[in-house]
Amino acid sequence: MPKLRTKRLSLRRPKSKRALNQIPGTLTYVGHKESSETILEVIDYNTNYFERYKSKNPQDALKFENEANVTWINIDGLNNTEEIENLGKRFNLHPLILEDIVNTDQRPKIDEYQDYLFVVAKMLYQNDDGQLLIEHISLVLGKDYVLSFQEAGGDVFDGVRERIEHKKGRIRNRNADYLLFALLDAIIDNYFLVVDDISDKIEGFEDQLFENRQDDDLIHEIQELKRAILRIRRAVFPIREVVGRLEKLNHAIIEENTGNYLRDLVDHIVQISENIDIYREMIWSLMDMYMTTISNKMNEVMKVLTIIATIFIPLTFIAGIYGMNFEYMPELRWKYSYFVLLGIMVIIFILMLYYFKRKKWL
Amino acid sequence: MPKLRTKRLSLRRPKSKRALNQIPGTLTYVGHKESSETILEVIDYNTNYFERYKSKNPQDALKFENEANVTWINIDGLNNTEEIENLGKRFNLHPLILEDIVNTDQRPKIDEYQDYLFVVAKMLYQNDDGQLLIEHISLVLGKDYVLSFQEAGGDVFDGVRERIEHKKGRIRNRNADYLLFALLDAIIDNYFLVVDDISDKIEGFEDQLFENRQDDDLIHEIQELKRAILRIRRAVFPIREVVGRLEKLNHAIIEENTGNYLRDLVDHIVQISENIDIYREMIWSLMDMYMTTISNKMNEVMKVLTIIATIFIPLTFIAGIYGMNFEYMPELRWKYSYFVLLGIMVIIFILMLYYFKRKKWL
Amino acid sequence: MPKLRTKRLSLRRPKSKRALNQIPGTLTYVGHKESSETILEVIDYNTNYFERYKSKNPQDALKFENEANVTWINIDGLNNTEEIENLGKRFNLHPLILEDIVNTDQRPKIDEYQDYLFVVAKMLYQNDDGQLLIEHISLVLGKDYVLSFQEAGGDVFDGVRERIEHKKGRIRNRNADYLLFALLDAIIDNYFLVVDDISDKIEGFEDQLFENRQDDDLIHEIQELKRAILRIRRAVFPIREVVGRLEKLNHAIIEENTGNYLRDLVDHIVQISENIDIYREMIWSLMDMYMTTISNKMNEVMKVLTIIATIFIPLTFIAGIYGMNFEYMPELRWKYSYFVLLGIMVIIFILMLYYFKRKKWL
Amino acid sequence: MPKLRTKRLSLRRPKSKRALNQIPGTLTYVGHKESSETILEVIDYNTNYFERYKSKNPQDALKFENEANVTWINIDGLNNTEEIENLGKRFNLHPLILEDIVNTDQRPKIDEYQDYLFVVAKMLYQNDDGQLLIEHISLVLGKDYVLSFQEAGGDVFDGVRERIEHKKGRIRNRNADYLLFALLDAIIDNYFLVVDDISDKIEGFEDQLFENRQDDDLIHEIQELKRAILRIRRAVFPIREVVGRLEKLNHAIIEENTGNYLRDLVDHIVQISENIDIYREMIWSLMDMYMTTISNKMNEVMKVLTIIATIFIPLTFIAGIYGMNFEYMPELRWKYSYFVLLGIMVIIFILMLYYFKRKKWL
Amino acid sequence: MPKLRTKRLSLRRPKSKRALNQIPGTLTYVGHKESSETILEVIDYNTNYFERYKSKNPQDALKFENEANVTWINIDGLNNTEEIENLGKRFNLHPLILEDIVNTDQRPKIDEYQDYLFVVAKMLYQNDDGQLLIEHISLVLGKDYVLSFQEAGGDVFDGVRERIEHKKGRIRNRNADYLLFALLDAIIDNYFLVVDDISDKIEGFEDQLFENRQDDDLIHEIQELKRAILRIRRAVFPIREVVGRLEKLNHAIIEENTGNYLRDLVDHIVQISENIDIYREMIWSLMDMYMTTISNKMNEVMKVLTIIATIFIPLTFIAGIYGMNFEYMPELRWKYSYFVLLGIMVIIFILMLYYFKRKKWL
Repeated sequence: MPKLRTKRLSLRRPKSKRALNQIPGTLTYVGHKESSETILEVIDYNTNYFERYKSKNPQDALKFENEANVTWINIDGLNNTEEIENLGKRFNLHPLILEDIVNTDQRPKIDEYQDYLFVVAKMLYQNDDGQLLIEHISLVLGKDYVLSFQEAGGDVFDGVRERIEHKKGRIRNRNADYLLFALLDAIIDNYFLVVDDISDKIEGFEDQLFENRQDDDLIHEIQELKRAILRIRRAVFPIREVVGRLEKLNHAIIEENTGNYLRDLVDHIVQISENIDIYREMIWSLMDMYMTTISNKMNEVMKVLTIIATIFIPLTFIAGIYGMNFEYMPELRWKYSYFVLLGIMVIIFILMLYYFKRKKWL
Repeated sequence: MPKLRTKRLSLRRPKSKRALNQIPGTLTYVGHKESSETILEVIDYNTNYFERYKSKNPQDALKFENEANVTWINIDGLNNTEEIENLGKRFNLHPLILEDIVNTDQRPKIDEYQDYLFVVAKMLYQNDDGQLLIEHISLVLGKDYVLSFQEAGGDVFDGVRERIEHKKGRIRNRNADYLLFALLDAIIDNYFLVVDDISDKIEGFEDQLFENRQDDDLIHEIQELKRAILRIRRAVFPIREVVGRLEKLNHAIIEENTGNYLRDLVDHIVQISENIDIYREMIWSLMDMYMTTISNKMNEVMKVLTIIATIFIPLTFIAGIYGMNFEYMPELRWKYSYFVLLGIMVIIFILMLYYFKRKKWL
Repeated sequence: MPKLRTKRLSLRRPKSKRALNQIPGTLTYVGHKESSETILEVIDYNTNYFERYKSKNPQDALKFENEANVTWINIDGLNNTEEIENLGKRFNLHPLILEDIVNTDQRPKIDEYQDYLFVVAKMLYQNDDGQLLIEHISLVLGKDYVLSFQEAGGDVFDGVRERIEHKKGRIRNRNADYLLFALLDAIIDNYFLVVDDISDKIEGFEDQLFENRQDDDLIHEIQELKRAILRIRRAVFPIREVVGRLEKLNHAIIEENTGNYLRDLVDHIVQISENIDIYREMIWSLMDMYMTTISNKMNEVMKVLTIIATIFIPLTFIAGIYGMNFEYMPELRWKYSYFVLLGIMVIIFILMLYYFKRKKWL
Repeated sequence: MPKLRTKRLSLRRPKSKRALNQIPGTLTYVGHKESSETILEVIDYNTNYFERYKSKNPQDALKFENEANVTWINIDGLNNTEEIENLGKRFNLHPLILEDIVNTDQRPKIDEYQDYLFVVAKMLYQNDDGQLLIEHISLVLGKDYVLSFQEAGGDVFDGVRERIEHKKGRIRNRNADYLLFALLDAIIDNYFLVVDDISDKIEGFEDQLFENRQDDDLIHEIQELKRAILRIRRAVFPIREVVGRLEKLNHAIIEENTGNYLRDLVDHIVQISENIDIYREMIWSLMDMYMTTISNKMNEVMKVLTIIATIFIPLTFIAGIYGMNFEYMPELRWKYSYFVLLGIMVIIFILMLYYFKRKKWL
Repeated sequence: MPKLRTKRLSLRRPKSKRALNQIPGTLTYVGHKESSETILEVIDYNTNYFERYKSKNPQDALKFENEANVTWINIDGLNNTEEIENLGKRFNLHPLILEDIVNTDQRPKIDEYQDYLFVVAKMLYQNDDGQLLIEHISLVLGKDYVLSFQEAGGDVFDGVRERIEHKKGRIRNRNADYLLFALLDAIIDNYFLVVDDISDKIEGFEDQLFENRQDDDLIHEIQELKRAILRIRRAVFPIREVVGRLEKLNHAIIEENTGNYLRDLVDHIVQISENIDIYREMIWSLMDMYMTTISNKMNEVMKVLTIIATIFIPLTFIAGIYGMNFEYMPELRWKYSYFVLLGIMVIIFILMLYYFKRKKWL
């Protein structure tokens, strides 16, 4: 079973960075990936044209802007806040938007501006070690461009890139709003994988409980999973509202045609949310099951002890009686009393066994 | 008691099929019934006319379309996506609808289009092995036709077929919208059977607990039932909204007259939902009961141990005293001391019994 | 304490009757009182006139209809569906209403038609054996008549009958809508009795727990009560909505004047609902209490065992030492060593007692 | 700590009084204070005038009515329903209002009539024995008068009386609506005291748990408190709605000016409700804590038993070996074997202690 | 780990101060910081001008009022109610506002008046001892001034003071409404720190549980934390509503421009609320974990006892048999019976070990 550990990139606001006295509207990257450099990838396309370009200099992005094509500019790495600020200025982004782009604690939301839409989401995916990563991603949809800002290199968009490059499906014939939809669809599709992993884990735990594994590690693993679910829930649930609002939004840069696709996204995200809540309830159930199996186990242990003690303590007492050193104990002198006593002991033993049998303890 | 195991046809999105990079609007069947072939059944009727036709070639369906009659085309088997696509084109269905038809993970919903309504539901029924099946079903209501797409052959519509064939009730005098209602009614009526089975199971568990069965299997069976309820809930609850919207919908192809019948459906589905939630609470109660019966059992075990140990350990100690080999122990020499000691032991024994009696441990 | 067992008349839809393929709008009685015959009672009155008539022939009801008087026709026994169908035709009732009248699983609701109102409710009352009965009752309010359909003979309306006959209160001066209110008021007043019984039961259980009764029967009785509360809740809660809608309804056959009385009913039913939820929380609390008293009990048992074992096992060991048969054990020869050892044992015994005293185990 | 026992004046509808067949709109006092007589107090005032008058004859109230002054008529004791009926007629009160005045089970509510407002509330206060009383109180606000009906003599209005008599604050300069506000304010202020007592009790219980008190009485006291909280909640929560509606009401007899004061009341009652819910959650926590302390205690008991048994049972066995009477046991003859054996036993003892030390059981 | 103890400044309404009969609209300080004196700090600024002034005489504040500048008057210490009353009169504040300023129990809220807005909030911060303080703070926003009233000296506003003094960010170029936003932002930013501390504590507890610490202190610390979370929740949650309303408010003294910043605040406070609820659920989980680790521990203890007892009690019995003093016991005479018996005992011992091994108790 793959490990499902959430790296807590985003839950906690690091104290040192987001200082108490930060001025609202200033950019402070609060994520953990400090050392990674900022990498820029531009994909520029229309029905007949396709260009892909990589650079470490965000300024290079600007030359691609051109009304005839859809331009998708993807920025990996958020800690070079200066570059992001420059880019923001170039695309006329509000300072608070820039703050949200680098603030990896920002919860998913959608902000509507006159010329563009700003969407914050969370990517969930497993890295090569099987660790679950919750990564902050910001999307800006303009008239003929989409900007995507990610914390780090890996992402879930390779399928979209391929579809654009190889002209699969209708993406090359559509506008930037469809690209935004395609990116959100890729993000949400990946949630299914994560949610499936949770389901696998829960079933794995049930099997382990059934095979009588009751060590403390198990309870810690269950607790860990519970926490992971809470985190995923926090990342996923607000998306529901985001996509819902996106569908209902009456904004010039979203073509009516795209609405059907967005409604489909809403369906998916509702389904994921419901599954998450089912798994949440199941995991609480697991805890109950764990408690009952422990209690059953203890019951079994106690029964063994009780059976042994109940059989042998009285017999030992009888042996003790005849181990006493009184001078006048008539039974001691009789020739067969030893064998008679052994016989009595065997009878007591058998009666005890029968008693426990009837009580169904054996 | 019939077995109530849910086959998990629909809970999980299989990883291999619904690949990460699927293009929205393409058809991929994600169910488990890959090998079954697609079978088509057409029932064409009006007040005076009835024809029933079976074929393995979906194209045959088309010749039945005819405004004068109500045409019900039922398709069993969803993995021949090409045929379904052809059918979809013939009836002008939107690509996203086709995607939902073959995506067995789609939750129940209703989509309103200009010329037709699209309803997704889940059939619950037990197969011959007593296993509970959750089967994905899609219904398309057009002006004079109903299309129904099922995953596999068995279904819950035989009663409707019979009523049409033998002119029972008013179905032959009504339009396609009444047929849709009749199909939904058949689906929902079947929920009552499943919910009754759950009730039987819960009572069975209670009886078993009462008869002191406390093995680990029971807890796993309860857990299994809990999971089944969660799954059924997920299949049933969205139907409530679907039927509710259907009733309130002001669509040309639903006659006003049918509204009363739909309101009746709403009543039924609300009733089922309430019962499901009652059973859910009862099953949580069962877990509590299970815990208390275990604890009671352990209490009983402990009492037996304590009574035996408390009676015999002191007596054994006394016997041990007189088993010591000191040279000068005056009691050992007295003639009746053995019998006196036996008497004392009997008195201690009786006092102990009395003590436990008064404590109500016996 | 009176027994509070709910007869499950109405929770389950019997499989054999409500067959899977029932045609919507047909009448099938699903209750359990198959053998009882249908009895009809007519009370016809206005301010100055009163007549009461009983018959086994529902057709007799029709001759009483007369605009000048209020006619209350009460039908006991629902399994003669033909008669009910005839009556329904005579009063122009919709087929779905007739279906709801005989479907004892129908949850409480109100349906508004042009010429009449249809109300479904549940009567709760105890029969002579102290068993709680949940009985399905349907009320139809027309311009100058009220029809009431009950499953069986006994009911809670004797007070209303008496008030009509003996001209108590204002009922003889008011129209049929006030009669409907009076009947609902009688039904709801009876809920208070049932809810009081629950309260008595809960207090009884608390007292029994306090007096240390912890057998498995108690937990089953608590479980039974919990289930009864869930059933009562299901019967009572929808009434809240029914009466609330009745109050707000702007229907010609409800006089404005009656509104105040209906508002009063709403108050009562809200109060009952709140009490039911309080009792529900209390009974969950009872389970907790039960668990803690079991645990306390076990603690007490364990303490007795531990005290006895802890005192006597070391002493027995000491006695065992001097029961060894080594040839060279100097203590055995000393004259007072037996008495010294007895003294040491007494001191150990006292120290142990003191230790347990200080630990507050004694 | 003062005792916090709720006298259940109002939870249960006594069966004998509120008979099943009571006619709606008739007056039946259902409280428990049957013997107390009805006492009337009139306070009549305007800015410059003050008169206070006590009588046992409610008819005396009428002579005070006078448009120039604010007249506050307080009636203690509700079981003389005839007098109340007379008073009601004099002030033109609706029969249902009179029924609610004497029905001490009525939950808090506000009814708006053309000429007056009717408010039902619950007074919480402790009597001299430290018992918590929940007392039914009804207030009628007319143009220039306030009527207050209480179950019994003691109340929480002494402060208001004093402010009127001694011209403290603005009360003498304001109209009857401000008097109503002042009375409600006095009632709600008293809730704070009761809620504080609950807080004290909870902390007391926590301290007792911490000091290892785990008897059954404690669990019963906690249960009692839980029940008290449920009752208080039921008395207090509806007031929130009452005051909220009072604030929003646009009624001629409430001056706009008083609105600010009412908004303040809403704040207070919201705060009390929040505290009650916090205490409710805390008390559930207490139960958990109780369970864990019991389990910890049992753990401790079990450890003592296990340590003693584990140390001495093997040693006793060894002693038993050398207590056997075989003729050929070479060790018995060796001179130092007794001492060697004692040495071995000491070593085993020390090793055991070390083992338990390392396991942290000591 | 820093200690997180909430000083209960504000939970309880002290009985002695807020007397039962307080007149609404009078000022009574109910906090605990009675002795601290009232200190006044004025910061007066516009884009080009800055002045900071401290005094113990609140009257000094008045000379700064001047339409051209933004004046921030901060008052530390609320128990000199007279001075506050004077200040209130000077700024035309409503008496109920003044009452709320000194009533430290007042929950967060916003009141809208024609000329000013009144906001009540709670500051959470840790003092030098690591204790969590919940401090009542009231803010009044007028056209060109902000008044802030605090219970005591320490606060969270130093960052704002610095930004004003050193012209950091845009604060010096904006109006009083931006200052109000900046103060609220500082308050809310501090919540993150407190919430982070809770997270640290929970993880600390988990680690301690994992390392098998199960003493009663831990449960009390967990309980303490649970209570702290409940208190923080009560302080923080109403702020959500306050800021939300502030954003939507259409008040002349809030510039449209500030709306974006307020929306940002809403985001932050929603995020904090969600985290608090996650921690709340986690801490309930902790209790469960605690219970299971205790049970596991007990299981382990019981196993040790059972293994020891089950091995040695039968062996001791066998030794007891041959310790009996019967004259005719043939085994006693045989030469090797002692060694044979020892051998049998060893075999029993090994079989027992094997049995426990197979049961996985070892």
